[in-house]
Parts: sequence; C-alpha cells; structure tokens
Amino acid sequence: MSSTTYIKELVATHRQGYALPRAFYHDRVLYEYELGKIWRNSWIFAGFTCQVQKSGDFFTFTIDTDAIVVIRDGEEQVRAFHNICTHRGTLLCQEDEGSMRAFVCPYHQWTFSLGGDLVSCIGMHEDIDKSELGLHTLHVEICEGLIFVSLSPSPPAFEPARELLTPMAKAQKFEEAKVACIIDYEILANWKVVWENNRECYHCNVNHPQYIKSNFDIYEGNNVSTRIQERLQKSLARSEVAWDFEGSTISHREGGLAAFPDADNDIWYSASRTVLSEGYESESMDGKRVAPLMGEYKNASVGVLRLRTLPNFWNHSSCDHAVTTRLLPAGLHLTKARVIWLVHEDAQVGTDYQLDKLTPFWQLTSEQDWELCERAQRGIHSTAYRPGPLSKIREYNLDAFIRWYIRQLV
Amino acid sequence: MSSTTYIKELVATHRQGYALPRAFYHDRVLYEYELGKIWRNSWIFAGFTCQVQKSGDFFTFTIDTDAIVVIRDGEEQVRAFHNICTHRGTLLCQEDEGSMRAFVCPYHQWTFSLGGDLVSCIGMHEDIDKSELGLHTLHVEICEGLIFVSLSPSPPAFEPARELLTPMAKAQKFEEAKVACIIDYEILANWKVVWENNRECYHCNVNHPQYIKSNFDIYEGNNVSTRIQERLQKSLARSEVAWDFEGSTISHREGGLAAFPDADNDIWYSASRTVLSEGYESESMDGKRVAPLMGEYKNASVGVLRLRTLPNFWNHSSCDHAVTTRLLPAGLHLTKARVIWLVHEDAQVGTDYQLDKLTPFWQLTSEQDWELCERAQRGIHSTAYRPGPLSKIREYNLDAFIRWYIRQLV
Amino acid sequence: MSSTTYIKELVATHRQGYALPRAFYHDRVLYEYELGKIWRNSWIFAGFTCQVQKSGDFFTFTIDTDAIVVIRDGEEQVRAFHNICTHRGTLLCQEDEGSMRAFVCPYHQWTFSLGGDLVSCIGMHEDIDKSELGLHTLHVEICEGLIFVSLSPSPPAFEPARELLTPMAKAQKFEEAKVACIIDYEILANWKVVWENNRECYHCNVNHPQYIKSNFDIYEGNNVSTRIQERLQKSLARSEVAWDFEGSTISHREGGLAAFPDADNDIWYSASRTVLSEGYESESMDGKRVAPLMGEYKNASVGVLRLRTLPNFWNHSSCDHAVTTRLLPAGLHLTKARVIWLVHEDAQVGTDYQLDKLTPFWQLTSEQDWELCERAQRGIHSTAYRPGPLSKIREYNLDAFIRWYIRQLV
Repeated sequence: MSSTTYIKELVATHRQGYALPRAFYHDRVLYEYELGKIWRNSWIFAGFTCQVQKSGDFFTFTIDTDAIVVIRDGEEQVRAFHNICTHRGTLLCQEDEGSMRAFVCPYHQWTFSLGGDLVSCIGMHEDIDKSELGLHTLHVEICEGLIFVSLSPSPPAFEPARELLTPMAKAQKFEEAKVACIIDYEILANWKVVWENNRECYHCNVNHPQYIKSNFDIYEGNNVSTRIQERLQKSLARSEVAWDFEGSTISHREGGLAAFPDADNDIWYSASRTVLSEGYESESMDGKRVAPLMGEYKNASVGVLRLRTLPNFWNHSSCDHAVTTRLLPAGLHLTKARVIWLVHEDAQVGTDYQLDKLTPFWQLTSEQDWELCERAQRGIHSTAYRPGPLSKIREYNLDAFIRWYIRQLV
Repeated sequence: MSSTTYIKELVATHRQGYALPRAFYHDRVLYEYELGKIWRNSWIFAGFTCQVQKSGDFFTFTIDTDAIVVIRDGEEQVRAFHNICTHRGTLLCQEDEGSMRAFVCPYHQWTFSLGGDLVSCIGMHEDIDKSELGLHTLHVEICEGLIFVSLSPSPPAFEPARELLTPMAKAQKFEEAKVACIIDYEILANWKVVWENNRECYHCNVNHPQYIKSNFDIYEGNNVSTRIQERLQKSLARSEVAWDFEGSTISHREGGLAAFPDADNDIWYSASRTVLSEGYESESMDGKRVAPLMGEYKNASVGVLRLRTLPNFWNHSSCDHAVTTRLLPAGLHLTKARVIWLVHEDAQVGTDYQLDKLTPFWQLTSEQDWELCERAQRGIHSTAYRPGPLSKIREYNLDAFIRWYIRQLV
Repeated sequence: MSSTTYIKELVATHRQGYALPRAFYHDRVLYEYELGKIWRNSWIFAGFTCQVQKSGDFFTFTIDTDAIVVIRDGEEQVRAFHNICTHRGTLLCQEDEGSMRAFVCPYHQWTFSLGGDLVSCIGMHEDIDKSELGLHTLHVEICEGLIFVSLSPSPPAFEPARELLTPMAKAQKFEEAKVACIIDYEILANWKVVWENNRECYHCNVNHPQYIKSNFDIYEGNNVSTRIQERLQKSLARSEVAWDFEGSTISHREGGLAAFPDADNDIWYSASRTVLSEGYESESMDGKRVAPLMGEYKNASVGVLRLRTLPNFWNHSSCDHAVTTRLLPAGLHLTKARVIWLVHEDAQVGTDYQLDKLTPFWQLTSEQDWELCERAQRGIHSTAYRPGPLSKIREYNLDAFIRWYIRQLV
C-alpha cells in the first residue's frame, strides 16, 4: 500500500464533527507524513527581527530533526539556513543564540559567509566548485518584525498573510521591541493536541482562573448572560473612545474566540483585536500595566492584539508587552513550546519592568495548558479511546483546525 | 503476510519441551498480538474489594497503555471503566487511588455518575445524546473479595474459576481484610519471563534462602530424600489435626509445585493449600505470626493458601496475612508488578502488626525474582540465544505455561 | 522487497567520492544488516592477553545485544563464549571483569567448565545430553597479545593479518604489559561516524592541539611546507640511528596518514611505525616519557607503532605505553568506546608512572573526537543533509573506509 493510500484510509476513519481517531496521535508513518506535508511545506514562525538586530546575530531551532539557523547577514538582511555543513553534515551552530562573523564549521573549518556562501575550504582538492557548496537556504519572509521561514523550495504565497497581518500588527511595532524573557517547554503530547487545546476556550473556565478574569473568550453561545453582554458592550464603548493608533479597530466584537482557521479557504493566518475586561489595562495578574507602552500606543486602552499562524504560532499583545508561543514538533509524542515575552526596546528591567510582574499571567496560563495537553495525550493512548463529538458552541475552531489539518494531508 | 500467518510461523519455531525462541521476547508485532489475544481478552486481577470499601472509593491501573479505573458506585457495586473521558479522551483520574463523588473530567468538566453515566456536559450543543456517551464499561467479577475485570466485550466464562476458587479461598475472608502495604516494581523484562520465573522453584534453592526454609516447594522429583519426606509427612499430620475451617483440606500433599496451568484444558485458575515447615506458623522471616489471625482461622496451623490466575495474579495467604502479586505489561521489555500485603481489617499497625516484620519475607523473595528475571531477559537479547531443554522434573509448570500461552495465540 | 534488494538500492544512492547519504546513519534495517554482515562476520578486537593472565580470569563485553565473555581456561588457553546459559539464556557473568573457577549460572546453577563444557545440571531429567549443551563458542585468535574473536561459524582468514601485524608489533610485547587505566565512553553517534572521524586528520589542526604537536599526521598533500619537510626528515634521520629492535623500520616515512583500509583488496588490518616530532619521546602532554620502556626497546627513540583492524580497533604505542581504542556498536545511534592504557607489567603506579601524566594526551584527544562525532551525527539527522565531496588530499582514507564498508554489505 502506498503511503498516500495509507493516509487516505486513515483520514477516512475520521468522522466529521468529532475528535480525531487514536492513530492520528500514535502513528509514526502519519507523523513523518505530516512533517513533509505540513512542517516542511508551510511558513513556520521562527522568531522576531529584534532577536537578530546586528549583522552576525543568530538564533537556532529544530523542526523535528531539521536544524535551522536564522541570522542577520552582512547586508542587514535576515536569512535562514539549514544549520549543517555542506561537507559532511556537521551541526554548525550549537548554541541557542549568539553572534558571529562567519559560519566556521568546527570539524574542518569550512567557512561560509553570513549570506551562506562557501568562502573557504582549505584542504579540499582544487577542482571543488565552491558555488555549489553554499549553505542550504530557506525562504524567509518578514512581516512587522515577525520572521517566518519555509523549508519548502516553493512555499505557499505569503502575501495574503502579510496583507491581513500588517494593518492589525503595525501599531505594536514588534521591530522596536526587545526580548524580556524566554521560557522553553517540552510538552509530552503530539503537536496537534497542543493546537486543539489552543483552539477552544471551553476548558478555560475552571483551568485558567487568571485568564478568564481579563478576557471575554469564554462567553460564547449559550454561555452568555445579559449581565456579561452588558459588561462586554461597556468595555467596547470605553475602549474605542480612546483609540487613535494605526489599525485601531476592534475586529472581534463578540465574546468567544474569533473563528480560525478558515479550513474551507485554506487560510492559515489570522489577526484580531479584542477588548479587556473592566479594570484590565494589560494581560497581567492584577490587570495593571507591567511595562512601558509599546509601539504607537498613546494610552493603555488598546485591548489585546491577537495573531496566529498555522502550524506553529500565536501571540497576545497588550499595550505594554507581547507574549508569543512558538510550537515545534520534536517527536510523535513530544512538542517543544517556546514562550517569548517582548517589551519596548528602551525598557529597562528593574526600573521599567519587573520579570515577576511581567511573566506570571502567561506563564501560568501556558503551564495550565501543557498539563491538560499531557493528560489528554495520556488518555488517548488507550486502545479504548473513541473520538467524541465536538461542541458546536464551544469547539467550532477545534473542528476548523481538524478540517484544515486534514486538507493539508490529502 | 497476515499477522495471523506471521504468528503461526513464529509459533512453529518453538520446539516442544524447550524454552521459547528469542523472538517471543523481542518482537513488537507479537507483543501487540498478545495484548489483543491475552490481555484484552482474559480476566485480569485488578485488586481487592477492601480497596474500594465506600461508595466513590477508586483505584487506577494501566494495562500497557489502557488506563483503567475500579470504583465502588452509588449502589455499592464494584464497577470498572476505561479511565478516559468520552469527549476527547482525557485521562479522568490521575491518582493511584482516592475517593470521589462523581467523575469530573478536568478538561471540560464533563461529569459522569459513579456508575459511568454522562450526567452533565455543559457547553455541548443541545442534540447531544448523553446516553451514548457514558464511560466505556468493563466486565467485572468479584470472587471472595478479589476483583477481576475484562476488557473483552465477551470475556471467557468466569463461573468455573469461581467454583474452584471460592471453597478454597473462603476461610481467608479477603473481603474483611485491609491493605497494610503496597510496593510497586518495574521489572525490565517481558511479562512472560516473570511468569516463567514464577512457574518453577528449580531456581529457589540458591536464590530464595528465606523462602525455602518455610516451604516444601523445592522438594520434587529426584530431589527428595527420605528425611525430607518424613518432615513433610510430619507437617501434614500435625497441621490437619488442628484444622476446622471451611475448605480446610490440604489439596497439595506432595513437595514441589502444584500443577498449573492446565494448558490442555485451558484452565487459567487454580488454588491449593500447602503445609509449612516445622516451626513456621506464617510466611515470615522467623516463621512466627506477624499479625492477628485472618478470616475464619481459629489457630495458626492452617498452612498456606495459594491462588493463581493467568495472565496476572498469584497469592500466598498465611493464617495472619496475605501477599498478592499483580502483573501488568508496560511494554515489550517492561512489566509492572504490584505486591500487596493484606491483614485483618481490625488490625492496627504498631500494635497488632509491624511493617518491618510483615513485609521482608515476600519483599526479599520478590526482589530476588525480579533480579533473576532481568538477568534472564538480558541474556535472551543475544542473537546467539537458543532455547534449551526444560527439566521434566523441575520445570513441568513452565512447560505448561508455554503450552497455555501458545494456545491463546493460535 | 527482499532485504538484499533493499540494501542494494540504498547502496546505489551513494555517490563515489562523497560522504554517505543520511539513511546510512538512520536506517534500522541497514543497522541490523550491518550487524550480520560486518559485526557478526569479522574479527573483533576484544582485549589483551594480559587482561586474562591466570586461569579463570575473564572480561565481558557486548556487541549490540550479544553478550560475550573472554576467559583463560584450565589449559592456559584464551577462550571466548557467548555469555549466556544454554538452559534458558540467562546472562552468566554480570561483571565487567573478574576471576572464577567455573561458569555457574545464577538462575539454576548449571555449571560449565572454563572450557565451556556443561559439567553439571542437577535437577534436569536423566536423558539430557550434556555434550550438546556446552556454551556457544567463539573463534579466537591471539596475535602478539591482542585477542580477536569472531561470532561467525566460518570467519575470514586470520593468517594474513597475523603475517602483517606480528613483525611490526613484536617489539612492543603487549603480552608482557599490564592495564594501567581503562576509560569507557558512550558516543551518541553511529559507529561509522566514529571511524570516519578516525580515518582523517583533516580535522586535527584546530581540534587536537596536543596531538598535532607530536605527530606529522596533518602534513599531507598541499599542506606541507619545506620547513615541515625538513623537520620530518630530521626526525626520521635522528630516530633511525638509534633503532635496534625487532621490526625496527619506519614503514610510513611521509607526513599524513598511512593508507588504510585497502578497500579494493578487502584488507582490514594494518600496521605502521611513524616518527615523533623533535622533543617527543612519547605521546604525552610534554613529550617526555611517562612510564618505563616497554618490550624490546632499549631507548625512547622508537617513534610510534600504530595498529588498526576493522571494524573496531586502533592502537598507538609509544616506547613506554600503548593506548588502544576498542569500538562496539550499542545501537543505531550509540557507540561504546573503551580506551585502554597499557604499561610494562613490572611498572608500579606512583613510583614508575603517574596516571595524571600517562592518560591526558589520549584522553583529551579521544574526548575531542567523540564531541565532533556527536556533533556530526546531530547534523546528519537533518533531512536537508546532502553528502558533500570528500577531500582527495585529506580524506582519502575516509573514502577508502566507505568503499571497504560498502564492499562488506553487497
């Protein structure tokens, strides 16, 4: 049986409107297939331009076993390469991040420019054609300070994503931000389990006591009382009066989650701006600001900018800080998550912001989610697991995620 | 090649009267096949009714990756369920044991009665049929306080087992016992290696210095001197004079192990009562009693009740305490063993019994066995391993185990 | 597809003069195939006769999962056996090394003579044929104190290796040495990565600052200045004047590595003697002697004897000590390396030699190599890895290794 036929038969076991069958979380053949069809074929969020400010600055990461390095080259361009030598494959940069003048392979000192050209390979015979031995280049797109890379030789069009994301993200000015904190997690769950968790707030009420106080995500469908509707309308009215930045529209004016992804139209990117609850200026533990205003914001009343791209990125940006989650598959049952906190580039730790005020809100929320993901994964291990129905009221986005996912496979 | 054909070809490599070939301990396809044909098709010993005394009391365990929960429901019935939510498969109970009023899934608060019915799933759309979304139920049989479960929709008949076990086990009154101690082990060996170890006492003489002093198991076939025969006869005579409880017969009057299993008749359950050596009232380090008398016993001279069921249970019960071993496969090369010490429910630790007197005898004996099992498994890893002949005198039960096992496969 | 066809198709993906494709370092089918075609079919270096000086002395090791024991028997012969009982496969000797009077299986006390004969199996039925149940014997060859074993029933001819190695190795007198130190390593790399590292000194210049001072290995092809040539000639001239031991010829009179293996003629063994740089009497940190003279040497000016056999042995012997590396595969991505330091058998630690003078030179060099190997392996994990060209000047031996390797497979 060809692998395509095999995948089609697997997909046929899925029942519309229900969770995915067990094999989708346990089958190694499918996992390898996903790597090819999704992870090596999409735009992958890598990090922020402010992480590679100067020529030679780099950071590294790994998609399953594919080692990647993102670097700012000698012409101020952000570039991305497979982080391996073209001689015998040795890992070039071992550090998470750093700065260098050129890529020098530690094994035999093959030397590549910051633009990936092989400039020296002393010890090789003379008729070596250096021009054929440059680093393997990845496609890169920059959008409002976000760096996306693609391992595909012919990635999908990026422009539609840019057109949607740019006006929404512009005011936050990620390119004038700096990293305040990074926390890396290993989640013992398939990457899809993590997305499924992210795509519904049905679980929030009990599991995210901090988060639900600040947001209206849980108020959808039959959940919404008149009192809540009034609270939401008041927040909307109060917020918009004060807004005067580029792209200052509340795109999502209801409770609940904005619809994403749009499986039927293969749309893998989205942005929305929502209001915060009364008393909340920022997604922090007490709702107070935890850092100086970012970007074009002139006051705190800007709600929350939310960005997402599949298969690996979401972001919540308050007036004063931005929190980003980047997912990377590290095995069939292992997902690496990096959470990045950004603040204004001029903000000084200790005086302008305190880490113990900045990070707890999303650190707690993230860790609450990872625990749920691991527990879900453990249960799905059971051979008795049968996919249950998804709530049409609270899990429409999870259903959309599954439909998007299946469209990528077939 | 179909998996049935594959298994048949594997079985054909086994030579009657010899140990099993290497593939039986290393082949993942076979291991998965065993899980289906044996572990998800048999009666599995789970624990004791005294572990779930009150409504809502539960304990959990895992057969390979199948999470199970045993609980006493609102009508005082012992029930067993797959320990996963019928919504998206999340593990329901994470603890080893505890007590609850209802199953509440931590993810989205779907709530199930103690009898497994879905009673609440707020947030789901209206036309959900709750009656189809109850927990996945397992068959349960209780026999003299022992709880057996089966993952099979149509498990084998339990009544023959009950008919044999009940009269033998009755006097011990497990249902009026309590747990004094539980020790959990992870044995780096295939589950069959652990059974093979259990089914012969050929290894006892050197490896179990404590055990052999108290029992006549090692005296079989050509091993038995006249002096030993006399000792055995004396113990038999002395014991029976004093016996006056229900089922008080010595069923196994010779040295050596009682025959088990009966492969030719597919009999997977057995019980016997044996005498102890002179000076032994209990299977303890010095032979003295280590707890108050259990069940219907009026004096200590009751020998040892022994129970076994395949594929995962054996028990040695003295006049004053009962020691049970429960095996569970946790991987091709990993077996989880739980050893449970029971005493009379009224016995008080510190006054009526001391753990350091109660547990050493079987803790030592068990750990001696696990070490042998791991060493056997390591050797069988060698590609040079060829199954050797089994002793007709000392390994007849091991041979019977192998024949029973193969009958389950084909 | 048969496994032979599969391997042939894999081999066809290799391009002459280039590194091996990714699958050669990641494919489990190929790894198993290598175990059969190479590791269970070749002469494997096990250790030294001086490690089993007295009758009953033994040491153990494992080739993938095959447990081996080497022992000196009652007739002073060095023997090798599969380290498993012929009854039920239990590992016989669990220790790395030791001494015993007979093999006694800990499980059921089956007892084998030091020559591997089953001498006792009390408890077995009478018609057991003990002569058929001796330990599984390996072929053994001793050559100048080096012990080689083969798991093959019909190993390749050893005599050509002996003819070449004996005259070169004789003067070192390994059989009159003793072990001064053993360090065991686990390298997270396929065994071929370790050999590829060993077969070129292209990486030495930057990575082995200690090693390159003492040797002329890096001076090959376009790398060699007139000044270096003069230094080499001076060392050659100075050395040879002083040499008066058996086999005292400098076999390798150029810079760079001696050619090995000879893939076209299936030659898996080699020996050479090279000179050391001026100021170096021994491969030590400061070039000074670190132990009393070994073997037939009458002064320190003997250069370095170098021995190698595929698939698992290399040795550098100075006038005063000998350093041996033994490789063993322990998994697709795991290689065990043992480094053994020998000195004259009469040398006393503390007075005649100090471990902190003896071991650093090769301990550092080895550990530098293992780190490079692990880094190479990590990079090769990338699906973007494409084998690069091998230097005709600096990697001719690596190319020869690959050609030798492929000849073994097909």
